[in-house]
Amino acid sequence: MSVNIESIIKDYDLDRVSIATVASHTALQILRGANKLGFYTITVAKPSTAWFYRHFGFINEVIEVDFSDFESVIDHLIERNTVFIPHGSYVEYIGWRRAISMPIPTFGNRYLIKWESDQKLKMKLLERAGIPIPKSFDDPSIVNKPVIVKLYGAKGGRGYFIARDRNELIRRLSSVKEDFIMQEYVIGVPAYYHYFTSRMHDRVEIMGMDIRYESNADGRVFGLEEPTFVVVGNLPMVLRESLLPTVQRYGEDFVKAVSELVPPGMIGPFSLESIIKDDMSIVVFEFSGRIVAGTNVYMGIGSPYSILYFDKPIDMGERIAIEIREAVNRDKLIDVLT
Amino acid sequence: MSVNIESIIKDYDLDRVSIATVASHTALQILRGANKLGFYTITVAKPSTAWFYRHFGFINEVIEVDFSDFESVIDHLIERNTVFIPHGSYVEYIGWRRAISMPIPTFGNRYLIKWESDQKLKMKLLERAGIPIPKSFDDPSIVNKPVIVKLYGAKGGRGYFIARDRNELIRRLSSVKEDFIMQEYVIGVPAYYHYFTSRMHDRVEIMGMDIRYESNADGRVFGLEEPTFVVVGNLPMVLRESLLPTVQRYGEDFVKAVSELVPPGMIGPFSLESIIKDDMSIVVFEFSGRIVAGTNVYMGIGSPYSILYFDKPIDMGERIAIEIREAVNRDKLIDVLT
Amino acid sequence: MSVNIESIIKDYDLDRVSIATVASHTALQILRGANKLGFYTITVAKPSTAWFYRHFGFINEVIEVDFSDFESVIDHLIERNTVFIPHGSYVEYIGWRRAISMPIPTFGNRYLIKWESDQKLKMKLLERAGIPIPKSFDDPSIVNKPVIVKLYGAKGGRGYFIARDRNELIRRLSSVKEDFIMQEYVIGVPAYYHYFTSRMHDRVEIMGMDIRYESNADGRVFGLEEPTFVVVGNLPMVLRESLLPTVQRYGEDFVKAVSELVPPGMIGPFSLESIIKDDMSIVVFEFSGRIVAGTNVYMGIGSPYSILYFDKPIDMGERIAIEIREAVNRDKLIDVLT
Repeated sequence: MSVNIESIIKDYDLDRVSIATVASHTALQILRGANKLGFYTITVAKPSTAWFYRHFGFINEVIEVDFSDFESVIDHLIERNTVFIPHGSYVEYIGWRRAISMPIPTFGNRYLIKWESDQKLKMKLLERAGIPIPKSFDDPSIVNKPVIVKLYGAKGGRGYFIARDRNELIRRLSSVKEDFIMQEYVIGVPAYYHYFTSRMHDRVEIMGMDIRYESNADGRVFGLEEPTFVVVGNLPMVLRESLLPTVQRYGEDFVKAVSELVPPGMIGPFSLESIIKDDMSIVVFEFSGRIVAGTNVYMGIGSPYSILYFDKPIDMGERIAIEIREAVNRDKLIDVLT
Repeated sequence: MSVNIESIIKDYDLDRVSIATVASHTALQILRGANKLGFYTITVAKPSTAWFYRHFGFINEVIEVDFSDFESVIDHLIERNTVFIPHGSYVEYIGWRRAISMPIPTFGNRYLIKWESDQKLKMKLLERAGIPIPKSFDDPSIVNKPVIVKLYGAKGGRGYFIARDRNELIRRLSSVKEDFIMQEYVIGVPAYYHYFTSRMHDRVEIMGMDIRYESNADGRVFGLEEPTFVVVGNLPMVLRESLLPTVQRYGEDFVKAVSELVPPGMIGPFSLESIIKDDMSIVVFEFSGRIVAGTNVYMGIGSPYSILYFDKPIDMGERIAIEIREAVNRDKLIDVLT
Repeated sequence: MSVNIESIIKDYDLDRVSIATVASHTALQILRGANKLGFYTITVAKPSTAWFYRHFGFINEVIEVDFSDFESVIDHLIERNTVFIPHGSYVEYIGWRRAISMPIPTFGNRYLIKWESDQKLKMKLLERAGIPIPKSFDDPSIVNKPVIVKLYGAKGGRGYFIARDRNELIRRLSSVKEDFIMQEYVIGVPAYYHYFTSRMHDRVEIMGMDIRYESNADGRVFGLEEPTFVVVGNLPMVLRESLLPTVQRYGEDFVKAVSELVPPGMIGPFSLESIIKDDMSIVVFEFSGRIVAGTNVYMGIGSPYSILYFDKPIDMGERIAIEIREAVNRDKLIDVLT
């Protein structure tokens, strides 16, 4: 199923590399960064949103396509010497199997998509990294604390519910027909960490963090409705500095686990999604193996943490473009692609 | 009632244009931007706050005046070749009728102030734009969902209440003596969009967005008090990129409706105020036809979205100054004034 | 108990001044700013976190030490012509008595630490400044409103509780064995103001503000637990501009009170911690006489308010470094040290 990237890029004109991504999620951030670093920029858009992306001068080309026919644009992208940047909306539109076998040089480790598609594999990777995760329950009758139930069809914040105790859990599960997992409901505040794994500098950078703005867990519900967790946006935040070494260690341990279990290991952006408990311990309940939408809070202005590695604040889109530029310049483009 | 701006600015020395605003709301942002673009800057301050504005080197002149006598400063402002930037505090201090007939060249479309002063006109403009708004009720006895009641005297977050059902509504209305409107209480998260309508570039730019920080709907009330909605500040946020085309379309449709109903159409900053529901639909419940205070979250640092149009992040104050500078340079100042 | 700073710095090589701080809290921000202004940078780290601080190129030297033996690094710091920047974690690790007598030139007024260590002295200083503070109660039986009880051992957000009325208060106090104070529980939203007192420019600057992100008062508790106030991070916010003159006046009045009661008066950063009520009045319940962690929200990107004093946004770390650089250049270093 693996794509022979090497044979594709051997014909690339490295003086004229393009960066392309799907028109949604973090496309504006990615393409603005790419434009700033001198790349030709392309976005592949659904017909319904292409008009919006034509507003922006930093996007050189907007390709309209029905995503059932996404493969039809590949030849053009390859002619344009394209490095493709995947993100959550791309995977959602295309499906993870197609994304893994898409014959286009792709920034990052695309094989992680499979691990993310399966709750058990996902938790296995976090466990291998030695990162604390929520306790899982196999049997409702042994649940002795509040739990969150995730239906297998859960998407975009729907398909979750919280049960305060075993009785509520059993009552609510009686109407559930799909598969589901049950996890301890960890009480604390959410925090989402944005990392960048640099192959060029051999390091794991903390690039930023955010919290999600959710309709209607954050809404003014006043008891009128059950909270749901549909993400509509993101807010910037910074962490107590005394927690940063833990966040850095989790990031480095996760990268190590990926290098052991998912060759060729981590490349570029990833995210750990956590709850911070009031004893200051950090429990990770989710990861993403590519750029997350929360990085948009720093679009163009840069994040407070990016300044720790660069002489001025940058965003994740620009960080990606810098890495690709450096890989091109050092003739190591293959090292950041799968 | 319309002011003959053309006859005033024909005597202006365009090499020495000043920008002035009332000392509150977004004055610091506006005047810093104006100073950066090389304009002479003036603020008109109440005696109680003038001292504060004298702290800042980028303000060339602080004029103290009792606002009942605001008209007394007009001659001086005109001698200084002033473009006046209106904002919410100015309208509040002066009253909308005086603001509309103030004999000073004013950036933006001042005639919108009248539309905002009347809940029914306000909703008519949003409806003309085809933007979804909350359902209104004329009769409490047909209310079948939670409603928010807005008293006509509502100001600064006070004079609202939420009724969960018809019974609560009828009970609470029994003690209300003023006029009021009743609207469906839309459940979801608030989001406030900052737009800029550029006459020089003939486009509608999404410049940023914010959420409000409200005492005490956001306070640690712990059930001790009824929530009120007094705004004390603002927080930055970014939206899911998949929602941006909708926000852009609402902005463009609103500008079109204004051009049809309120000549000479939209000029400069405006805002739409929305609730995002958990099905991702966006309902607009309010607009503002000029700069909103939420833009202050980006003062000096610039907003993530501004980078989509400019090569570095800028704030709304600087955006206004850039537009006026361009209008001056192209001898089109009249196009951005009313 | 006072340290003879003058005799130490008379031997300093002013062309080679170092800036040092303890590795936690705001160390990254402080040292990045110091590095930007050309200072040699040193951090003193616990063995458990030193590895993390070695990631960053802007830190010239990471000294590992067990903090029970902190004094052992002083000679080296003095050889390096060090100005030491204290912060909350330093005071917490070392204890306030040792911090006051530490024989190292220290930026700011270290004698404030004693005033902060005692709730009664703390309130006395705010009262002297004429700043509104929460009403205190000496006797539970006269309490007639919600109160917050602060145990003397309170730290990091633990050791507080809220009682809604006298009966709840008396019931809960029955199990409290330590000393405590009782204060009116002020209902409204928290806001934390970051000030900088510049000796070089003889002014009090509003540098920014933040709100705290607390586990689990901000957590998704859903009634499952009692809220605690453990701070895990910070979020940026801006205030209504009409409230800024009050915030500026409180800052200036506080600086005046410090100059009267705590010689040599205020130097550098400090913070007032407030609740804003829904009548827009601001009650201050706490202060910090040095840099607060909330300033990290602006690390590297700068704060919206800093732009009011400087031609580009800066953070508090850089602000400190600018002041020290200016003091060095004008041969007035002693003026910013204790």
